[in-house]
This record gives sequence, structure tokens and C-alpha cells, in this order.
Amino acid sequence: MSNRLNRVNFLIPIQNRIQLVEDKMREQPDGHHPDLFMALEHLLSSGGKRVRPAVALLTGGMYGADPDRLVILGAAIELLHTATLVHDDLIDGALFRRGIATLNASWSPAATVLTGDYVFARAAKMAAETDSVEVMQLFADTLATIVSGELTQMFTSRGLISREDYYQRIYAKTASMFELATAASAVLSPVDEGTVRVAKQMGNDIGMAFQIVDDVLDFTGEQATVGKPVASDLRQGLVTLPAIYYSEAHPSDPELSALLNSQYYSEERLDRVVREIRKSGAIEQSMDEARHYINSALESLRLQPECTERFALEELAQYIVERSL
Amino acid sequence: MSNRLNRVNFLIPIQNRIQLVEDKMREQPDGHHPDLFMALEHLLSSGGKRVRPAVALLTGGMYGADPDRLVILGAAIELLHTATLVHDDLIDGALFRRGIATLNASWSPAATVLTGDYVFARAAKMAAETDSVEVMQLFADTLATIVSGELTQMFTSRGLISREDYYQRIYAKTASMFELATAASAVLSPVDEGTVRVAKQMGNDIGMAFQIVDDVLDFTGEQATVGKPVASDLRQGLVTLPAIYYSEAHPSDPELSALLNSQYYSEERLDRVVREIRKSGAIEQSMDEARHYINSALESLRLQPECTERFALEELAQYIVERSL
Repeated sequence: MSNRLNRVNFLIPIQNRIQLVEDKMREQPDGHHPDLFMALEHLLSSGGKRVRPAVALLTGGMYGADPDRLVILGAAIELLHTATLVHDDLIDGALFRRGIATLNASWSPAATVLTGDYVFARAAKMAAETDSVEVMQLFADTLATIVSGELTQMFTSRGLISREDYYQRIYAKTASMFELATAASAVLSPVDEGTVRVAKQMGNDIGMAFQIVDDVLDFTGEQATVGKPVASDLRQGLVTLPAIYYSEAHPSDPELSALLNSQYYSEERLDRVVREIRKSGAIEQSMDEARHYINSALESLRLQPECTERFALEELAQYIVERSL
Repeated sequence: MSNRLNRVNFLIPIQNRIQLVEDKMREQPDGHHPDLFMALEHLLSSGGKRVRPAVALLTGGMYGADPDRLVILGAAIELLHTATLVHDDLIDGALFRRGIATLNASWSPAATVLTGDYVFARAAKMAAETDSVEVMQLFADTLATIVSGELTQMFTSRGLISREDYYQRIYAKTASMFELATAASAVLSPVDEGTVRVAKQMGNDIGMAFQIVDDVLDFTGEQATVGKPVASDLRQGLVTLPAIYYSEAHPSDPELSALLNSQYYSEERLDRVVREIRKSGAIEQSMDEARHYINSALESLRLQPECTERFALEELAQYIVERSL
């Protein structure tokens, strides 16, 4: 998927600037511990699609922000994202992410905590380099939202959740960071407050769709493509939109609740539930939700005059819902 | 010690504003997980002396900064300090700090990591509320310095270190945060760049002295007063200034190096080493260092016109070296 995304058209207008973001993320201040750079390099070379910086570069480009400040912003956003992943992996005990060993797999938990903190510090430093107090506040708010969401998830007992809880969770986990990318880009642009609000909504829409499709792919994707076992969320007791729609349509299905309520899942039961969810309308209902968000994002984009960046964002939005096909 | 400090004179001019700092730290934004507030309240009620906010309030008061912004700054600094302590305690596996159970003692490591992150986010948010990009940058730099220092300490093998390594370590661990308190206060004040540099140096001097005296008290203090067992640093293989001076004077003493190089220490050997260090000139040499830093801070203060805040800072500086008596 990563390769395919790297080839898609919407990245062409910003290829050079994405490279500048990569360089910026790797900037090495003097006097810090050398192992920190090795760790940071390891984290950054684990790749990822740089979707968040792409969204920031394109949004800010569309609104007329200074390109250099957008590169700094893109790097700050991807570093913040990276820092939350480091602590996430530690919390989940994950040994791999995107097929590459996590820091957690080879470092002690203590070193991993500190490395995550260090990446936070680098992200904060870079956010401050945008020279905008408002951008700094957006960063701090986003971090608080993400962390609060993770704690809520940690303290929520396993089992079914409502759609409303699900939306709150994916907002905190994913959409808040896309919202940061678009809102901060708009803040750095010569636009009025109304446009900042539209930008923020657009980031939220793109992020919500992005996570819903990710959750659908967890059911429909092949392990080789998605890079993790099918239904990895359900295996961890994490209920996502397809399972919620399925349980709404089949409230008395004993298989799903047995799966969620037992300490250990049986592989056979998991297989049966996944097959049932795939056969049901739940996948299509979830994709309808994702398309709803993307359509809302496209409407926001149509408020802007036509330009390369707007077209690229439209493509990016379309790609998010089409990558599941 | 905490009680004694709370009664000392230099806090009188800022008693009300310290209370405002306390209130500000406890501000609860909507929509975040309720357990976060319980955790934050627990952390903040563990007290501490609020020396860092006091330094910020007094320095900014002396330079003529807006009092409301200083309260915000003081709260941001104490929150940053608190966040680093949460992750520290997790890393050290400490179950108590200042005689009160750490979060780590009752929460899972995962929840503790996230709570620390949340306090970072709150600190960043509050730092942004000072409305100064320069203050934000100082915050980010300080966090990077602290974390890098902790990693250096983690990766340094046990055993003797040089005085230079020691100074680097206590700068990262303690003095950097005092430097933040004075430099950020000056940045928020109507003063020139030269004054900001003087303020920064003064914070550094106060912080270095503060940590050296802490390290001396670890040898000379009674457990009841200091709140931890005598020579708790040496027990953890951490070499501080008194031990460094002692080993410089007794390079061939087999007891100290045996203590540092063995995996498990014998209580008898520790007692002998502590007695030798106390008897030697190492304690007085260390206190001379601390007094040297305090004298430098007092010189910086004498550059300012006489005012209540200057006098209070002078008292605070004196108190730091006298509390060991």
C-alpha cells in the first residue's frame, strides 16, 4: 500500500517538498545523545506514507502559505505523529509496525519512553519554529486529545461500544492529527477565520474517512497488503465500525459477543465472525460513512479556486476511499 | 525540608501568586478523561516546594513582566517538571517520591506513560498561553536537554565519572529547568537581550547550586529530613560530586570502586564509604562549588536596582546553600 500511495498523482506537485520535510525531521541539534539520532533515524526510516505532511503542504499551498514554513509544519506534524506511535507501541507491547521492528522490540521500556519524549521535544521545537503561537496551541491541544483518547480506550472495558464512542475514539486517534495538519496550515496562510474553520472541518473529514477505511481494510484486506493479520483489531478486543454495524443488525448473535467477552479468542470463532461480517452489509455501510466524510471534504475544497493543490487534495481524498477496492 | 522552605521569607512577596499558579495547574479542560484529573490532582498534591515557579515569579517581577503571564509561565514550568518526574519514576521503578506513592506504584506502566504525556501536553498548552514563541522554544529545548541527559545517564556504565560529566548531568537534570524559569521570565519582560542572557546565567547558577546541595544532603542528611535513605544515589550506582572529590583525593581507595563495580552492594561497605566521604574534605569542597555558583547568581542580581523581588531572590539563593546546615 505504501508503494502504491507513493506513486499516486497527488504527491507529484509536492515531491520535492516532501523530501525537504524528510530532511527537516532528521535535523540533528548538537550535544544530544548519539543513540537518540540512531533511534530517530530508525523510526523515520520505518517510512510511513507521510500522508499528514502531504495534507499540510497541499492545504497550505492552496491557501498561499509560505512554503518554507509549511515544510517546518509538515516535519513537526510527522514528528508528533511518530512520538505518539513510539509510546503506543510500548503500551501495546507491539514488536513490529509497518513490518519493521519497533524501538520497543530492541530497547528497554525506559529507553523507549525517553525516546518518545525526545521526539515530542523535537516536534514541539519545530512547531515553535513556525513562529506562530496559534500553531503551538493547536499542537498542544492535539497531543492532549490523542493521549486522553488513548486513556479512555485503555480504561474502557472490552466489549461492544456505541457508534458515538467509536467516532470519539477515531477522532482522538486519527482525525485530530489531520485536523491539526489542515488547521495549522490555514493559520499560517493569509486567510480569514472562516477559512480556518473550513480547513479544520476538512482535515477532520479526511481523517475520519482515513481511519474508517483502515478499519474496513482490517476486515477485507489480505495480510500481505495490510501488513498485519486479518481482524487484528478484533483479536485485541477492539471493536471498530464494521463490527458495530454488524452487531446492530444482528443484536442477538452469540458469536461476536462471545468473542469479545472471553479472555482468549478461538481462531475458529474469529474466522466465523470475520466471514459473517464480510458477508453482511456492515462493510458497505462503513464505506458509505467514509464516503460521506470524503464528500464533505470535497465540498469544502470546492469553495476554493481551482489550483494544482486543490486538485491534488481532491485526488488524495478520493484515494482514501478507493484504496480499499 | 518542604515545611521549612514554605515558611521562609522569600516566599512572602509571592504567596498569593503561588496560589494562583496552583489553581492554574489544576485547570481542567472539558472532554478529557476524568481519571486524568484524578492522576493530575494526585501528582500536584504530592506537593513539592514550587521552587521553580517561585524563581520565575520573582525574576519576572524584578524585570517588570506582566504578573498574569508570569503565573501562566510558573504553572507551565511546574507542569513540565511534573511530567518529567512521572516518566522518571516509571524509569526508575520508584514507588515513592517525597514520601507519597508515585503514579507508577498504583497505575500500570502504560497508564503512567500516557499520564506523563498528558502532563507534557498541558505544559505545552500553558507555555503557548504565554503568547511568546521564544518561550515555547525555550520549553522545547529544555525538554530535549532533560531527556537527552537522562538517556546519557542510562547508557553510561556504572562507575566513576569525571567532574565534567557530573556538571553536564546536573545541568540537564536540574539547572536547565531553573535556566528556563529565569530566561523565560526575562523574555516576557521589557528588558534587552543582554539582560535575558544574565537572567539565563543566574538560573543556571541557582540550579547547579541547588543540585549540588541536594547531592551533598544525600550524604550528610538524616533520612527523616531528606525523605530517602542516606547515600541513595550511591546505592543506585550514581556518583555525585562528594564521591568524585573523595575519589580524586583517594585514587587508590579500593572500597569506593568495589562498591561501584559490584552488581550488589554490601551495606557494611556502603557505610564505610559514606563515613569516609563525610570525614574527608569532599563535602566541604562540594559546598564550596555550590557557594561559588550562588555567589555568581548574587553578582547577577546586584546588576538590578533594589526591589522586593531582588531581595527575595537573594534570600532564596542564600537559602539554597544554607539548608544543608
